[in-house]
Amino acid sequence: MTPAGRRPGGRDTRAEILDAARQAFAEEGYERSSVRGIARRAGVDPSLVHHYFGDKALLFVELVHLTRDPRINVDEMHAAGGVTGAQIVRNFLSSWESGTDDVRGGRFATIVEAVASSPQAADALREFLEERVWSRVPEPPRNRALITAQLFGLAWTRYILRVEPLASADPEELALWVGATIDTLLESRRTEEPGEHA
Amino acid sequence: MTPAGRRPGGRDTRAEILDAARQAFAEEGYERSSVRGIARRAGVDPSLVHHYFGDKALLFVELVHLTRDPRINVDEMHAAGGVTGAQIVRNFLSSWESGTDDVRGGRFATIVEAVASSPQAADALREFLEERVWSRVPEPPRNRALITAQLFGLAWTRYILRVEPLASADPEELALWVGATIDTLLESRRTEEPGEHA
Repeated sequence: MTPAGRRPGGRDTRAEILDAARQAFAEEGYERSSVRGIARRAGVDPSLVHHYFGDKALLFVELVHLTRDPRINVDEMHAAGGVTGAQIVRNFLSSWESGTDDVRGGRFATIVEAVASSPQAADALREFLEERVWSRVPEPPRNRALITAQLFGLAWTRYILRVEPLASADPEELALWVGATIDTLLESRRTEEPGEHA
Repeated sequence: MTPAGRRPGGRDTRAEILDAARQAFAEEGYERSSVRGIARRAGVDPSLVHHYFGDKALLFVELVHLTRDPRINVDEMHAAGGVTGAQIVRNFLSSWESGTDDVRGGRFATIVEAVASSPQAADALREFLEERVWSRVPEPPRNRALITAQLFGLAWTRYILRVEPLASADPEELALWVGATIDTLLESRRTEEPGEHA
């Protein structure tokens, strides 16, 4: 482990803090990780972590931003002929499915912990979804919110609560089961509320 | 605050620890509460907390058991003519809706934190749902799991992520929107898979 020290701030310091945080969250989980421990890993003073990222929750949300940009997924769906429920489920699950069975969904659990413990982290995640996903899918707000509920409910039940058969099902089965419900929500925009989307 | 001390164990001690934990979780949230702090509030040695409840997460799940027993809700639905999606949503939301807007859903956030940070707490919550809810509603496992996903997805989006219009909607509107999806899952048992439920 790098000893604690004093470094001038700058672009590299910021990146090193992010690397240290990614390691700490992966190895220790969100709750047991601390700004002090992350600063020690990065070899900087804790005040620099606060300076760049605010607090632990906001640092974590910053890391979420660095995974595959969901805008790419949305653009690929549009290019492939349109947004479908099954494809939304496939893309969403692929963000969390890496790793062995034991750690599968571990990053989702870390996000859940961060967001449940900090309204600021929840605001940041919501703004992230609005900016990176919903800005490119012209659904009315109620349908966006209900589709968000479908996806987080699925991930919660699969990765956190581990209710069978959702916990062990193949992603393709989940795309079928939950995709059908999302299709209903997507279709309601076109058939029932044509004037509502802005 | 009660000073730390040494008390003999017993029924009252157990109840006092639960009271202290309820206060601590309500005032400090799950993450900032500690077994040590809860023991101090209860005026007992931390080893007694571990003796009775294991760890912080299991102590929290014990508290969940003390809210209104969901078996009463299920029995009331059966007595009123049957289980409906809208009534499931109403009952589920009523567990979390007390308090002002600022703290509404606060207890749900605490459960989410506990369960996301501890597989033992997740196991306990899942077993609690199986014992208190699903044992009385003869749905096939897949439908149970998908209905669980509907409810937790709704609560997550309303209380934690606070996506509008779900965050501010009246519970009756939510019972309409999400109840319809749950009705589809309940009906599929009767019309599509009559032999699947055991």
